[in-house]
Amino acid sequence: MSAPGAFARAAAQVGPLDGAAVAAARARHALLAKPLGSLGRLEDLGAQLAGIAGACPPPVPEPAAVAVFAADHGVACSGVTPWPQDVTGRMVAACCAGGAAISVLARQVGARLVVVDVGVAGDLPPHPLLVDRKVARGSADLCVGPALDVDQTVLALDAGAETAARLVADGARLLVTGEMGIGNTTPAAAVVASLTGADASRCTGRGTGIDDATLARKTDVVVSAVARLPEGAGPLEVVRRVGGLDIAALAGFVVGGAALGVPVVVDGVIALAALLVADAHVPGVRHRVVAGHRSTEPGATVALEHLGLVPVLDLGMRLGEGTGACLAVPVVQAAARVVGQMATLGDAGVVPPG
Amino acid sequence: MSAPGAFARAAAQVGPLDGAAVAAARARHALLAKPLGSLGRLEDLGAQLAGIAGACPPPVPEPAAVAVFAADHGVACSGVTPWPQDVTGRMVAACCAGGAAISVLARQVGARLVVVDVGVAGDLPPHPLLVDRKVARGSADLCVGPALDVDQTVLALDAGAETAARLVADGARLLVTGEMGIGNTTPAAAVVASLTGADASRCTGRGTGIDDATLARKTDVVVSAVARLPEGAGPLEVVRRVGGLDIAALAGFVVGGAALGVPVVVDGVIALAALLVADAHVPGVRHRVVAGHRSTEPGATVALEHLGLVPVLDLGMRLGEGTGACLAVPVVQAAARVVGQMATLGDAGVVPPG
Repeated sequence: MSAPGAFARAAAQVGPLDGAAVAAARARHALLAKPLGSLGRLEDLGAQLAGIAGACPPPVPEPAAVAVFAADHGVACSGVTPWPQDVTGRMVAACCAGGAAISVLARQVGARLVVVDVGVAGDLPPHPLLVDRKVARGSADLCVGPALDVDQTVLALDAGAETAARLVADGARLLVTGEMGIGNTTPAAAVVASLTGADASRCTGRGTGIDDATLARKTDVVVSAVARLPEGAGPLEVVRRVGGLDIAALAGFVVGGAALGVPVVVDGVIALAALLVADAHVPGVRHRVVAGHRSTEPGATVALEHLGLVPVLDLGMRLGEGTGACLAVPVVQAAARVVGQMATLGDAGVVPPG
Repeated sequence: MSAPGAFARAAAQVGPLDGAAVAAARARHALLAKPLGSLGRLEDLGAQLAGIAGACPPPVPEPAAVAVFAADHGVACSGVTPWPQDVTGRMVAACCAGGAAISVLARQVGARLVVVDVGVAGDLPPHPLLVDRKVARGSADLCVGPALDVDQTVLALDAGAETAARLVADGARLLVTGEMGIGNTTPAAAVVASLTGADASRCTGRGTGIDDATLARKTDVVVSAVARLPEGAGPLEVVRRVGGLDIAALAGFVVGGAALGVPVVVDGVIALAALLVADAHVPGVRHRVVAGHRSTEPGATVALEHLGLVPVLDLGMRLGEGTGACLAVPVVQAAARVVGQMATLGDAGVVPPG
């Protein structure tokens, strides 16, 4: 038997939030130079960040780093998307060249960007932003069998956890989930349906913008994939059978960040599927995560409701890559900054009424 | 008759959005390396910014500058708020010292911050961030007569327009509205009710968090102030009679920014009341404005609906000072960056399906 890998070690390290730090942040908010509660969600986020960091005030979680996990999916060839699989590699190249949406948004918020190849089908030329952790040339088609074997699943989980650890070792204090992979909303929908118990039809959406016939086919694929899961399959078995390499790596990334006490901002349906896996395997990991935005992809809302998470942004976005989460970064950083940098009513010489 | 002031000159300069630039931004979004529409509101904002700038791609609107207009309100002494009026001056001092919420959030988004005294009751010590444009030591009590006289109204409008011009001359390319002033949600509610036709009770909220008895008194004040307006009072007469110096200055600031082709991000109910004044006086100025967030103060939602604006953020905030608008700044800047910096599908070597 081999030693536990990065994912297993990280999973064992995730503890509950520091309740004393949460309480201290809430108490401090009651003293700051503003009416209590008037900063709304920023006050909740500030308390959560204190609980994650185990300190009040929490350090401002900067700089941020975005990890884009790229992988292909066998199911993409089963009529669930009109885009050819080689687009994944082309989008990775665009991302490395600085022209993908996530490239642009990462620059806006001052975040470092890395792309981790955990399973792109084609060969990718080396690039300084690209990390080669290719587990396979895409997953198997989940229409006809498990998407991954056990070894592949573990390798992807470990690649995610190790990416989190490396980014934090390099200085990142906030992690942002990203992904690229033609076809990846299909396994995401299957994972969401499996782990929430919601109807597959409620979890399946139009992804890049597919037509009605393709959506019907995609929904059938998701329904039958979920139906073929063994009774009582655990989260790692779910991501193995109906998920994919990007989703497994993202689950590892979330757990890896949580283990290191760094907040993780999650993006849309792919990341939320991964968070469902992570939280079912490591209960409570969700409390160390901020939902960056509400994707219009329906499975995202199903997952958010199941996890009890309220997203920071709701901008009608559904691009993925980490774009929605990235835009939430300044709000999260602001929440920490408020706790640590605002004057109190006393400092301002203001005596509250009543 | 005196020469037209800064506000009148600015009002005459505001034109419609550049339709060709709007169309070019929309056309460019259809070519970018992403599914069309997948960036949701960012795509709309990008087109709006192109229309405001008269250029596609629009320049990234940075740096931002926040102007906090500080003023007192005679009505504060009529039982609409439990906070003593001298808190306004103390909060201005906290803002200048870097400890107000808006100080902290402006730092987060890299925005310059100035505080413009257009009507604080007390004397304020000089400070590098503080601009003295004091028109009066607070407005008159709108319970018993007009809040302002005609000259005061013009001076406040001009102070706002001139502040916008000065900030832009100093390099700002995005303006953010801010305000401070004990009692200012009462005149804001009265202005919103007057200019939208909505029931005063729908426009009047708890401000800093007043109790039921104070809310009832405040609502009565708003109802009777609106009822005393002369039939057919225009927007400048409305802000004079039931508004205040901060709201008038903010109206001038919005028009001043619009005249210079710079987007203005507006905050909560005070700023939206000012925008209602500005847009009624200069029809269409709303198209040069981005609603930064949805304040929980009910008049904000009434104003947003009347103006047809959808806010960028909805974080349950109601602090004012410009805090909600400030947090929207990175999203607005990102929208411009996407239009100008993303690769096209062609650049990425991707042929869209269908």
